[in-house]
Amino acid sequence: MALSYGQLVNSGVGKQLAATLGLPRPAKLRRHVVGGSLVPGAVLVTGHGDAPVAERVRVLLDDAGVQVASKPSTSVAAVVLDLTAVESPADLETLRGVVGPALKTLAPTGRVVVVGRPPEEATSVAQAAARRAVEGIVRSIGKEMRAGGTANTVLVADGADAGVDATIRFLLSGRSAYVSGQVFRVGKPVAPIEAPADWDKPLAGKVAVVTGAARGIGAAITDTLARDGATIVAVDMPSAGGPLAEVANKLGGSALQLDVTADDAGAKIVEHAKARHGGFDIVVHNAGITRDKLLANTEADRWDSVLQVNLLSILRMNEALVPAINAGGHIVNVSSIAGIAGNRGQTNYAASKAGVIGMTQSLAADKTILKKGVTVNAVAPGFIETEMTAKVPFATREVGRLMNSLSQGGLPVDVAETIGYFSWDANRGVTGNVVRVCGQMMLGA
Amino acid sequence: MALSYGQLVNSGVGKQLAATLGLPRPAKLRRHVVGGSLVPGAVLVTGHGDAPVAERVRVLLDDAGVQVASKPSTSVAAVVLDLTAVESPADLETLRGVVGPALKTLAPTGRVVVVGRPPEEATSVAQAAARRAVEGIVRSIGKEMRAGGTANTVLVADGADAGVDATIRFLLSGRSAYVSGQVFRVGKPVAPIEAPADWDKPLAGKVAVVTGAARGIGAAITDTLARDGATIVAVDMPSAGGPLAEVANKLGGSALQLDVTADDAGAKIVEHAKARHGGFDIVVHNAGITRDKLLANTEADRWDSVLQVNLLSILRMNEALVPAINAGGHIVNVSSIAGIAGNRGQTNYAASKAGVIGMTQSLAADKTILKKGVTVNAVAPGFIETEMTAKVPFATREVGRLMNSLSQGGLPVDVAETIGYFSWDANRGVTGNVVRVCGQMMLGA
Repeated sequence: MALSYGQLVNSGVGKQLAATLGLPRPAKLRRHVVGGSLVPGAVLVTGHGDAPVAERVRVLLDDAGVQVASKPSTSVAAVVLDLTAVESPADLETLRGVVGPALKTLAPTGRVVVVGRPPEEATSVAQAAARRAVEGIVRSIGKEMRAGGTANTVLVADGADAGVDATIRFLLSGRSAYVSGQVFRVGKPVAPIEAPADWDKPLAGKVAVVTGAARGIGAAITDTLARDGATIVAVDMPSAGGPLAEVANKLGGSALQLDVTADDAGAKIVEHAKARHGGFDIVVHNAGITRDKLLANTEADRWDSVLQVNLLSILRMNEALVPAINAGGHIVNVSSIAGIAGNRGQTNYAASKAGVIGMTQSLAADKTILKKGVTVNAVAPGFIETEMTAKVPFATREVGRLMNSLSQGGLPVDVAETIGYFSWDANRGVTGNVVRVCGQMMLGA
Repeated sequence: MALSYGQLVNSGVGKQLAATLGLPRPAKLRRHVVGGSLVPGAVLVTGHGDAPVAERVRVLLDDAGVQVASKPSTSVAAVVLDLTAVESPADLETLRGVVGPALKTLAPTGRVVVVGRPPEEATSVAQAAARRAVEGIVRSIGKEMRAGGTANTVLVADGADAGVDATIRFLLSGRSAYVSGQVFRVGKPVAPIEAPADWDKPLAGKVAVVTGAARGIGAAITDTLARDGATIVAVDMPSAGGPLAEVANKLGGSALQLDVTADDAGAKIVEHAKARHGGFDIVVHNAGITRDKLLANTEADRWDSVLQVNLLSILRMNEALVPAINAGGHIVNVSSIAGIAGNRGQTNYAASKAGVIGMTQSLAADKTILKKGVTVNAVAPGFIETEMTAKVPFATREVGRLMNSLSQGGLPVDVAETIGYFSWDANRGVTGNVVRVCGQMMLGA
């Protein structure tokens, strides 16, 4: 039977766009509230065959005081489906049978989390096909979710189930409000997993260095990590000294004025953190700039300055930061959807942000880093509402806001929450990941 | 310095959409013409440092009678840039200095091909960052190209340079008219690379089995492979017997009516191909169906039929086809952009097409396949103009047509040409690849 694949794709896109454009206003997302419950209702937890992760999730939810449902008959706030045991694409019928009916009665801001195993570790071609199919299904479900709901895939390596709890918690919680259509990969932990005494203070006792901390997303990162218990070293340009001091004062951390591109930037951060706080556990490389132009018109200095600030400075600072970061620590880099999909007029920026992905994956696998038990991950923000976004012309802004499954822009706190999750000591099985915080923006590679 | 990544992305998207919507009509693409030149003009070939691939490309172009330019001063039809020797993101200045100016004078339907090495094989974090940055740059260039031009990345494994020629030829030629923004991965060849006696008949003497051959993309595949010298075994449902016979008669191949989901479908194909043609060298798994509905409303049979036809049948047929395919042969699977990005209303279809990706990558690495020297790859079509597309409502159709860097839908022949390229004996270093034929459609993962 002959096929028109394009037609089908198109018809779906059309429907998605139409549904998006027809919405009177986007759903209010469920964001993290200190002292609030993990998830506002019962969670349906089930799986195919053995489903060892489902069993872990039930225990986790029980500990968190969340009601667990085992049948799709009642309305639930979330669905966690364990497909780690699928052997063939035929086994995916379990997913249709569970998630299909559950979607009809899922509460607003619902969550669908499907847990599988990495296709590349499969022991048969049929198993690899089934495992890879999960991602295609969940990305489609993300595009069908309504009322601020999200759908994500978690791929857990064989023998690494203990590392999955942090990701399940993150995805069920309001911390992942603007994260949808993503694939999380959990491997063997790089250091022992340590659950926090209080899940409202997962970063208690930790020191976090944040670059570009004075404004916008950087300021949200400092707010969020401080809220979660971290002491902040807020780093920004001397020219941002005023707002930087405000951030540090408000949070009770310390401020450090420096140019991240300076040769001694890394050494200065290490010196400051040791002198003021006895060391540091978390580094967030957030500083960055843009100098947009079509490549044909991009002069050498416009090219170089973006690569220097957004990429080369991080490589240089890490020469000092990696040896000095506390064992079991966390490095988080800020990439961008432009680094994944490319972007017109941003060849230099896309170069730097794609480079951040290469750096993240390479450093995560570095022997020194692994020996120290440090995780290295990246966030890739999509359309995030900031002061700068507010200045974008109306039509352009609306396109950015609407071209995602949640039909709205994200908030700086959404990026910050994902960075926080990457920084938990309970989350040491996740390293080398690049997670988009984009509401499942349609754009991609 | 604080950043708004989203704003930048958005602003670029806005520009891209605006540019797209403002175009009075899309550029006429340059497609392959039998007996025509590889590329209609001189090709600028240069690189960073050693640039061993640039040297190969110069020889290749010389053989093909194409003029080689070494400086960006003259107007050219294509640019090939060898960045295999980059050590740090700072080295990417070579790209800006060469491609930037060249874009200003690039002829219509121009080509930008940037050759690099895989980031995961890098020997330093800086090198990994630089290598990964290339992809971000080239995806951005694809979005800046005008007049039907394309930009693609080729990542060649260390020691695998001999395998790159086929991909360079494909990307410079009209065969890749609708392929842009993609990453090709060339590894050590699975069998000796054999250049054809005549590049207009790269499949001379080969027997190709094509399923779903009666109509649409399937019919274009049979036409194209036959044009390139292959003898076709056209397979389709008994209900498509009429058009199927026409296809086979026109091309001088043979027709085989069967249901691909039948238990003995693979065995029957083997039997037919051996009896009629003495065996087969190429298999194109193109047959597929859709049964669209939101997952919440997808009944078991609607789910199962799509997985059966699009995925399980291939796994089953391959049990007979893999042992029987001639050594050094090629298997090509048809996936879809829906399998990569997911699609609203197509959970079952996306499952099957994502599963095809998992199957492709797993089978490509299978020991039996490697021992036989067989390549296994997949194409993922975007919006392709077919009889079925023509029936889609106007607005929906226009969205599909415009949401890509070439501002138009592709033709069935574009999908077929990529399948042809995967089937060349000159192309045995490319296996486990998934190449989108989508004009760099904005949608992705």
